[in-house]
Order: sequence, then structure tokens, then C-alpha cells
Amino acid sequence: MKIWKTSLLATAVLAFAARGYAQDAEPVVTAADAMFTANNVWMMVSIFLVFVMHLGFATVETGLTRAKNAVNILFKNTAIVAIGLLTYALIGFALMYPGDSWLIKGFLGLSADGLGVHCPEGAAGLMDYAGGAYSYWTDFLFQGMFAATAATIVSGAVAERIKLPSFLIFSVIYVAIIYPFVGSWVWGGGWLAEMNFHDFAGSTLVHSVGGWGALASIMLLGPRMGKYVNGQIKAIPGHNMPLLTIGVFLLWLGWFGFNGGSVLSGDPGGVSFVLVTTSMAAAAGIIGSMIATWSIQKKPDLTMVLNGCLAGLVGITAGADVVSVFSSILIGLICGAVAVVSVMMFDKLHLDDPVGATSVHLVSGILGTLFVGVFSPDYSVGVQALGVLAYGAVCFPAAFICMLVLKLTLGVRVSEEEELKGLDIGEHGMEAYGGFQIFTNI
Amino acid sequence: MKIWKTSLLATAVLAFAARGYAQDAEPVVTAADAMFTANNVWMMVSIFLVFVMHLGFATVETGLTRAKNAVNILFKNTAIVAIGLLTYALIGFALMYPGDSWLIKGFLGLSADGLGVHCPEGAAGLMDYAGGAYSYWTDFLFQGMFAATAATIVSGAVAERIKLPSFLIFSVIYVAIIYPFVGSWVWGGGWLAEMNFHDFAGSTLVHSVGGWGALASIMLLGPRMGKYVNGQIKAIPGHNMPLLTIGVFLLWLGWFGFNGGSVLSGDPGGVSFVLVTTSMAAAAGIIGSMIATWSIQKKPDLTMVLNGCLAGLVGITAGADVVSVFSSILIGLICGAVAVVSVMMFDKLHLDDPVGATSVHLVSGILGTLFVGVFSPDYSVGVQALGVLAYGAVCFPAAFICMLVLKLTLGVRVSEEEELKGLDIGEHGMEAYGGFQIFTNI
Amino acid sequence: MKIWKTSLLATAVLAFAARGYAQDAEPVVTAADAMFTANNVWMMVSIFLVFVMHLGFATVETGLTRAKNAVNILFKNTAIVAIGLLTYALIGFALMYPGDSWLIKGFLGLSADGLGVHCPEGAAGLMDYAGGAYSYWTDFLFQGMFAATAATIVSGAVAERIKLPSFLIFSVIYVAIIYPFVGSWVWGGGWLAEMNFHDFAGSTLVHSVGGWGALASIMLLGPRMGKYVNGQIKAIPGHNMPLLTIGVFLLWLGWFGFNGGSVLSGDPGGVSFVLVTTSMAAAAGIIGSMIATWSIQKKPDLTMVLNGCLAGLVGITAGADVVSVFSSILIGLICGAVAVVSVMMFDKLHLDDPVGATSVHLVSGILGTLFVGVFSPDYSVGVQALGVLAYGAVCFPAAFICMLVLKLTLGVRVSEEEELKGLDIGEHGMEAYGGFQIFTNI
Repeated sequence: MKIWKTSLLATAVLAFAARGYAQDAEPVVTAADAMFTANNVWMMVSIFLVFVMHLGFATVETGLTRAKNAVNILFKNTAIVAIGLLTYALIGFALMYPGDSWLIKGFLGLSADGLGVHCPEGAAGLMDYAGGAYSYWTDFLFQGMFAATAATIVSGAVAERIKLPSFLIFSVIYVAIIYPFVGSWVWGGGWLAEMNFHDFAGSTLVHSVGGWGALASIMLLGPRMGKYVNGQIKAIPGHNMPLLTIGVFLLWLGWFGFNGGSVLSGDPGGVSFVLVTTSMAAAAGIIGSMIATWSIQKKPDLTMVLNGCLAGLVGITAGADVVSVFSSILIGLICGAVAVVSVMMFDKLHLDDPVGATSVHLVSGILGTLFVGVFSPDYSVGVQALGVLAYGAVCFPAAFICMLVLKLTLGVRVSEEEELKGLDIGEHGMEAYGGFQIFTNI
Repeated sequence: MKIWKTSLLATAVLAFAARGYAQDAEPVVTAADAMFTANNVWMMVSIFLVFVMHLGFATVETGLTRAKNAVNILFKNTAIVAIGLLTYALIGFALMYPGDSWLIKGFLGLSADGLGVHCPEGAAGLMDYAGGAYSYWTDFLFQGMFAATAATIVSGAVAERIKLPSFLIFSVIYVAIIYPFVGSWVWGGGWLAEMNFHDFAGSTLVHSVGGWGALASIMLLGPRMGKYVNGQIKAIPGHNMPLLTIGVFLLWLGWFGFNGGSVLSGDPGGVSFVLVTTSMAAAAGIIGSMIATWSIQKKPDLTMVLNGCLAGLVGITAGADVVSVFSSILIGLICGAVAVVSVMMFDKLHLDDPVGATSVHLVSGILGTLFVGVFSPDYSVGVQALGVLAYGAVCFPAAFICMLVLKLTLGVRVSEEEELKGLDIGEHGMEAYGGFQIFTNI
Repeated sequence: MKIWKTSLLATAVLAFAARGYAQDAEPVVTAADAMFTANNVWMMVSIFLVFVMHLGFATVETGLTRAKNAVNILFKNTAIVAIGLLTYALIGFALMYPGDSWLIKGFLGLSADGLGVHCPEGAAGLMDYAGGAYSYWTDFLFQGMFAATAATIVSGAVAERIKLPSFLIFSVIYVAIIYPFVGSWVWGGGWLAEMNFHDFAGSTLVHSVGGWGALASIMLLGPRMGKYVNGQIKAIPGHNMPLLTIGVFLLWLGWFGFNGGSVLSGDPGGVSFVLVTTSMAAAAGIIGSMIATWSIQKKPDLTMVLNGCLAGLVGITAGADVVSVFSSILIGLICGAVAVVSVMMFDKLHLDDPVGATSVHLVSGILGTLFVGVFSPDYSVGVQALGVLAYGAVCFPAAFICMLVLKLTLGVRVSEEEELKGLDIGEHGMEAYGGFQIFTNI
């Protein structure tokens, strides 16, 4: 029955067949088929969750900055998703997973199929691609959704003062080349993987990569006008706390796919364990930062607590699969509390980071990576530290040089007048909240 | 172990058994059972994603219009989901999937079970319903979530000036009768399906159906006050860009289920391919519209870029399963750029569409349907064009007559005074942002 | 192929093995393995959906209250998730599911493993834990996500006037002890389960538990300043209707997991049926409340309609698995309409509940529980009523005493000056919408 519908399905399958990635036409369902389907459903769910993180980043960054720059931030975060996916299809996927096709053994590779995406024909792109865990296209899209994250992290740190074209060019380079190049060292089976460096879902490979880029960028850009006046630190409050909160909840939600999907199959024991350590670290990050902000600032600051939640999540990302539930709570508590202190420290250094990206992604990313060595008997703190340093040693200078070249050519900073009026008018000729009265004199 | 819990499960299963749609009591799990479960999980995930689109539409439309009409728009979008699901249960599902029970062969049918929902007893509503791809109830809910979409598209175009009762009546008729009637031509196995017309997930069946309704409605309603003054086009900016952006990201997210679920099973190869073409078209829609708006308007307009993303998504919907990844990027680029030009063109024609629904859903829906013939060797541009015309030939006049009758009876437009004050006060006696100071003199 | 990736997976699996919850190393996939994976994927999706409800609650409560208290509400809702998950790991899970380890038979128990989480080693925590329906960790996290809900419901009712530390202490006690203690009576296999009391997903166990806490709390707290003046009821409108609407849609979305996950497996027939009754009740709740508010208030109030949707959802929660689709529509219509009347009634009683939590969660929770006896032949109205009373008889006094002790010690109400200025400044020293002009004189 329902032949008019299954015929539609048949059409689709035939269409796939015509392009060489058809399923086995065998009508008997095997247990391996069913497992493949279940595993792949899980990985597709993870894709959606990681996609949601981009909305989370967009709302967090917008909420933590001023209304006069909201359009600009939303624009950047929208553009980055597009840039990330398209450049990953074009370049990134082939650089990050070179297989055995290294140009410099374990350090720099390029897929034997060259640039672009190339689904192997027949079962090789399906059941055989990853031992029945997911298909080629699922793999590509999951990894592609990760790619844009690094640039998005930079986006928050440089908000409210960077020129749009310069930021877009920086993003293309950072996402298309730097991220997959260094990513290949671990997830592509490169030299750090061979040393038993462990970064489960990217405390280092994703978050600190973004964090190093953020740090280099804000050093070159300088602080926002009015942030540090006569040696004093002035608070520039974000304009929309509900938006920020929505963002943090969406990021936590997305992290279920970021970490849970990094098991790379729907394995019930493995994935559910990772979901628990991830959740415990997020919850403990809230409590850790709540204690810290309440103690230090006397009143509990919502932005600190929400950043503490993210810090807990970044911190557990490297070891979510190999630390105990109890350790995950400890990691969350520490990372949450450290984030509060770290935000203050960067301010003392007059490094202006409107959203706390360096604290949340770089500091917590480093901590989380080291904690793998501390809390799991199978890994060494030394190797973990080596990995942290190696990433910093490449990503910070790469970002710095890239941003410096832009500074000396196109320029990276908007004019003072534009910064005062807001980038929404300056870069986009529009406002985020037409009809509302907003004070833009801050 | 855990008998106190599995006994709860047993209760549930017994309850189902008592109603005749019990699972096989056989304790041995077969591969087909497992595949059925995995497939059905995928389809249920798709249901949730399509549901999320309704929140996406609500936030996009609210963000793109003025604060004084926000309550009215949120109300309409909430009501439409309810109307859509209930009328689809009552009427739509039976009209859209008549099986072999045609009143006019291939053109108008009605399920042999009559109106309402009727789950076949036993395995016929489960494993046998769609060859182990999904259950009867899953099928109904997935299709039901689609149904309200067409009326929601109209909602955006007629925003800020339509009388609430007239809109609700129009929606009931359009969702309950027009949408499933024309839908049966393709997805119900009707005459266009037999001609090898291909519309995978509804560029024509959903988006252009909504688009034709939008076009007819705005022709009869006329533009908002102050939109076209002395032949000049005045911009009426939306009041909340973060809300708009949230909506577009949620729509993209939802599209993973809209397109991915339209594979009608969890087939790893088929679904993951569709997710990739869908994502590439969305990303390319962003880039295409960014190039167009930056070139034409000199500064990149956020609303144009977000509409470009949606245009890319609408454009790929018809052929997501049968075009190559490279073609999907092309389709996205073209649809994104065309959306920018189309929004300007409708304005030049003095057809006031506050959210650009006609450009995004009608123009891109038509383009996407034709592109199936262009980019896939298995389909003909001629047949695709015939389908486009057939849908226009029924939907536009149907919507026009329906709206005209309402205009001549209840009236469709609020008073000038109400339009100035805002429909929130006029239709609902409340404000969207109590406590905020808002300028309502635009 | 892809050995560099599957080796990562292998590492993860080995790590799990080292901790004693490894998968069977047998390389042959069985149908039972595949079914286990598919079932567990479904339960993990349900976890995410229930998690989303916390964001839904946060946005609903913020939207329905004033801008000057938004930070405080967001803070509470963030803290509650953390408190809920951590205390559930520490105490709640062991109290709620004691197995056969009762201290007072069927009334109060404690897991034989004592407090904390204790995943059984090997297959006992995996395939054998729930007959292949989900793993131990999946079970814990699903139940943990439910736990915080009860306190969140209280949060809305006491908004805009409660002292933050007192609320946090109340939440810890209510979530860590009261909720799992009474929960064990039904879901833990206690005395009410043995009497054939049926509460599928928690109309009583979750929603009325929260509702009783809300009722006790607002009786002790008293109304907000300016709410009841000289015997007259003054409306205090919420400040952000888009935020409210986002919240209600997210709650509906989350309910798919709340109810759908309560089937406790991915059973295609059972889960998809529950999704349909849940959706029909939500849709009918919208229509029922729309009719009621339009009739009584002459203009349709958006907040009433959205609360009507939630009331429909709460109402169907007890019987989603055992009532017919037609009954689910009736239940939704009744609960939606009753919610409108109930909100007015509580106001007449001068019980100030800013978000209508008592109407939506307590009144509808009771109705829904009783409706199981009315609409399903397998259950008795008498037993259902007994269950309702039993929960009220414990939860109301427990909450009352707990809040009273806090009132007499720390104090529960902020100062008049703080209430006027807003709790955001008072409790947190910050504003929700920096840069916007907001009237705080209401």
C-alpha cells in the first residue's frame, strides 16, 4: 500500500543510483543495514545540533554588545556559516582528512582525490565508508558544521569595531586553510594523533584555534572607544540579556551534538556517557561561576554565569569520553570559576573582548585539554601541553600576520565616527530596532 | 531489572494493543523491526524540524514588520498552526492522499475511509503501512506539519493591515481545501505525478501555493499606508533584526526535516545527500544575495541576505534529491541574487509585501521547480513548467476569489485609524513591548 | 577506510571498556544491537527536547513579566537547570527509582546503591538495563532533565518579588527531595502505581507538583505592588510578546520529547501515536482558549491563547498514550478554555501569579489526570482523583512549610524600593536592555 508514496521514494533512490551512490538493491533488510541507518540518524541529529550552535553564537554575541552594532554582528554570523560550509566543501575537507596522502608526513596533507568533495561510488560511500557508522555525505556535513565555528569565535572578540570586508576576508582564510590544516594533526591522523594526544571534540582543535585567532585580532585592533579611559576600565553592557540567554541555552543544546556526535556513531553506551559528562560540566560551570561572581562582585552577574556555563562546556570537550562523571563536575566547576577571573584579567591587560571569547574558548580550551591528562590515566599532561603549545604556535602567528596584512592594506578598524554612530548604520545603512528609542551615546 | 519502568512501558504497549495498533508481541527482534524503528525515529525528528519552521515563520514575519503589529502577527502564526493541524486531521489528509479513490481520476480524490484520520488496524498501520519506513501516525503528523505552511506564507505578505477574522477564515479554506486538493496531483499520485513532474519536497506544492495566495491577497488588500507616496517607494523597516535572524536560522534548521524527511525513510545515502544539497543551496543563497545587495545597494542589507538564504532553500526544495552538489550551489546563488532583484521589482509594481514572501516563496519556488528540468537529466523543463502553470492557474484564482468574497462581506482591511495605531491595540487590545518606548508614528 | 577516524572511535570505546561499560566486542551486528541503538537514539533526542523546555520556560516567564526583572528571571531559570541536574545526580535519581529497596514500602525508598549515580558494569548498564530500550546514562539524563521542571514552574509564579537566595534554597529542596520522593509513588513503582493510577508523562508528577509549590509560594509571598489596588485588579502587562511566543513554541517542541520519550523506547506505533495526541491537544488548546478569550474579553488576548496551548499540553500529558485522538482534541479544547477562566479566577482571589503557572500547571494538571479516568476505559476516575489529592496533600504543605521557614529566617520578599526599581538592579546590579529606554514606573 501507499504505492504513490513509496514510488516517490523509489524515484529518489533511482536518482541516487544514477549518480553512483545507490543503496544495495537487495530487498532483504540485514541487521547491519538497520544499524547503519540508526547510526547515521544519530549523526544527522548531531549535524542539526551543531548547526544550532551557529544561531547560539549569533545571539550570544548580539546580546552581549550594543544595539547599534546588532545588525553587523548578525550579518557576520550569517555570512560565516555560508563561508564555512562552502569553503569546507571546496578546500577544508580535503585538507583536514588527507587519508594517507600527506605532503609533509603527519603535518600537511591533501586528499588523494584533490580539492572538493568526492563521494566514493557505491557502498564505499555508504556502509563501507566508516564501517556502517555514517555515510560520506553525513561525514562531510558534520565536519563542515564544525568548521565555521573557529571564525565565529573570533567574530565575538572583534565585535563593534572591525571593518566588515576585512573580517570576511580573515574568516575565509582562517576557516578554509588554518582550521583544517592544524585539524589534520589530530583528527586527520597526523603527528599529534600518533603521540596519543587526545582532544575528543575540539577543546583545542576548535575552541582554542578560535581563541588564538581572537587574541591575535584584539591585540591588533585595539579596544573599543570608551572602554579604557585614563587607565580605568569602563563597563560597556550588552543590550539584550534574553538574547544572550537564548544563545547560551542553544549552545548547550548544540554541544550535545558537538560532543555526542564526536563519538562518530550512535553507540548507546558511548554517546549517552558523553551526554552526561557534557551536561554535568555545563551545570557545574554555572555553579562554579555563580560562586565566583557572587564572591568577587558581591552580586551574581548573569553574563558571568552564562559565560561560566560555556566555559564548562569548552572545558569538558577534550575529555568528555575519557573522564569520570565526578571529574566532569570538577572540570565544570573549575572552568566556570576561572572564566570569571579570566574575563577580569583580560580587562586588566586592556585587551578588549566584548563577549569574553578569549576566556571562554582559549583559556577553557587550554584547561580542558590539560585536564584530559590530569583526570584520565590513559593520557599524559605533557603530551596534552605539547599539543596546546603546538596549536598556539601556529594559530596565533597565522592569525596575527593575516590580520596585520589586512590592517596595512584595507584597514581593519572602522572610523571613529562610524564606531560612535554604530556599525549598523556605517556598514549596512540600517538599524536593528526600527521604531524603538535607543541611546547610542555610550 | 528496572521492571518498575518496563512495566510502565508494558502498560503503554497494552493500551496500544487494546486499540488495535499493537506491535508484534513476538519477543525476538528482527532486523526489519530495527530498521522500522530507525526509519521512524528519523521521520519523527523530521516532524519536529518542520514544526520548528512555524516558529521560524513567526519570528521572521514579526522581525520584518513594525513593533505595533507584533502581537497580531504572533497571534496569526500561532492560530495557523492549530488550524493547520486540526483541519488536516479533519479534511486535508483524506483529500491529499486519496489512494485509488479518485472522484475525478488524478485530479480530485477522497480517501476510501472518508474524512478524518483512520489508522489501519494492526501491522497495516505500522510495519506494512509504508514498507517499514514509518507508521500511519508518523505519516499523518509529518504531512500535517507541512499543511499550515502555505497559509503562513500568506500571513507575512498581508501583515500590518489585514483584519484578523478575515485572515483566519481565509486560512481555514486555503489550508483545509486548496492545499490538499492541488497537493494530491503530485504527492497523492495524481495527474502530474503520472507525467513525471518532479517536486521533491514542495518548491511548487508548498511554497508557490503559499506564494500565489500571497500575491492574490496583496493585490486585493493594497499597500500599507505610507508605503507608496506620490509614486515614491518609502522603506518601512522591520523592528527587530535579531528576531528575524533567529527565524531564518530556525527555518534553515527546519528545512533539514522538510527536505530530509521528504526522502520518506532514514536511508543514510539518500537523506544525507539531501541535507548536503539543502545546506549548500542555503549557503550559496547567502553569498548570492550578498553579492547582489552589495553591488546594487552599495551596503549589504541584512534583510536581503537573510531572504536570500530562504530563497536558496526554497529553490533547492524541488530538486534536492536529483541535482548534483555543484548544481545545488548554482541554484542557491541564482535564487539568492534573484530574490534581491525580485523584492525591488515587486516594490516597483507597488505590490506591498512586508516580508518579501512573494519573492522568496513564489519566485524562488517557480525557479526551483524549473531548475529540476535544467539540472537533472531525468526531468523535462516543459513538464516542470506545465506543473508550475497548473498550480498558478488554480491557486491564484482560488485565493483571489476567496479574498474577494471576504472583502465584499466582512471586509479585509482594518480602518486607517487602526492601521496607524497598530493592529495590536486594534485587534487584541494589548502591546508587544509593554514598558518600552516605541515610536508608532511611522 | 577512514581508519584515522574509526581509530578515534576505537579509542573512545576502549576508554569506555576500561571503565566497565564497554559494548560487546563481538564484531557481528545483531538485530537486537541495531534496535538498541535506534531506541537509544530516540531517547537521546527526547533528552534534547526536554532540555529545550528549560529555554522555553525561561523565555515564557521573561516575556510575561517586566523588563526591569528580566535578568533576575533569566538567572533563576539558568541556575535551576544546573541545580536540577546536579542534585538529581547526587540525590534525586536514587530516591525516585529505588527498585525494590524501599524504606517504607511503596512510599519512600532509596536505591540499593545509595545516593549518587552508579552505572551497572558491562551489559547490565547497556542492553540489559531496560531490555534494549536505552542505556543507564540515557535513563539518568532523561529523568534528570525532567527534575528541574517542577522548580521552574514555581519560578514563574513567584517572579518579580522573590529574594534570589531564598528562591535558590527552596529550589534545591523541592527538586532534590520533594519531587523524587513523590515521583517514586508512581514512576518508581510505589503505592499509586500498584493501584493502577495512570500518569503517563507527568500531568500530576511534574506539573501539579510544580503547581502546588507555586500556589503555596504565592500565598506566602503576597501579590506584586500595584497589582491589587483598593480591591481592583490592575493588569501588569508582560514586556516582550515575541519572547513569550518563542517560549511557547519551544515548550510545545519540548513536549514531543516529554511525552514521546515517556514511551521509554522508540516503538514506532506507540511514540507516533503519543506525538499525535500531544499535538492535537496543543492545537485544540489554542482554539479552546481563543474561543474563550474572544467571547469573554471581546478581543483575543495573545497571552491567553499561548497559555491555552500550554494548558492543552499539560492536560494531555497524563493520558497521551491511552486516550483516542478525538479525546485528545476534547481534552485540549477544555483545558484551553478552562485556563482562561482560571487565570481570571486566581486574580479574583488576589493570588498574584504573573505567568499563570497555577492555571496552566496545577489546574490543567489536575484536569488532565482526571481525564485519564474519563476518557480511557482502563482507568478509574476515583483512583485518578485519589492520586491528585495525595500529591496535593504532600506537595502543598511541604512547599508551604519550606517557604514559611525561609520567610521567617532569610526573608522571601525583596524590599519595596527594590521591587519598584526592579530586581535586576537590586539582585544583580545590571540591566537586561542596556541602551534602550524603558519605563520602570509601573
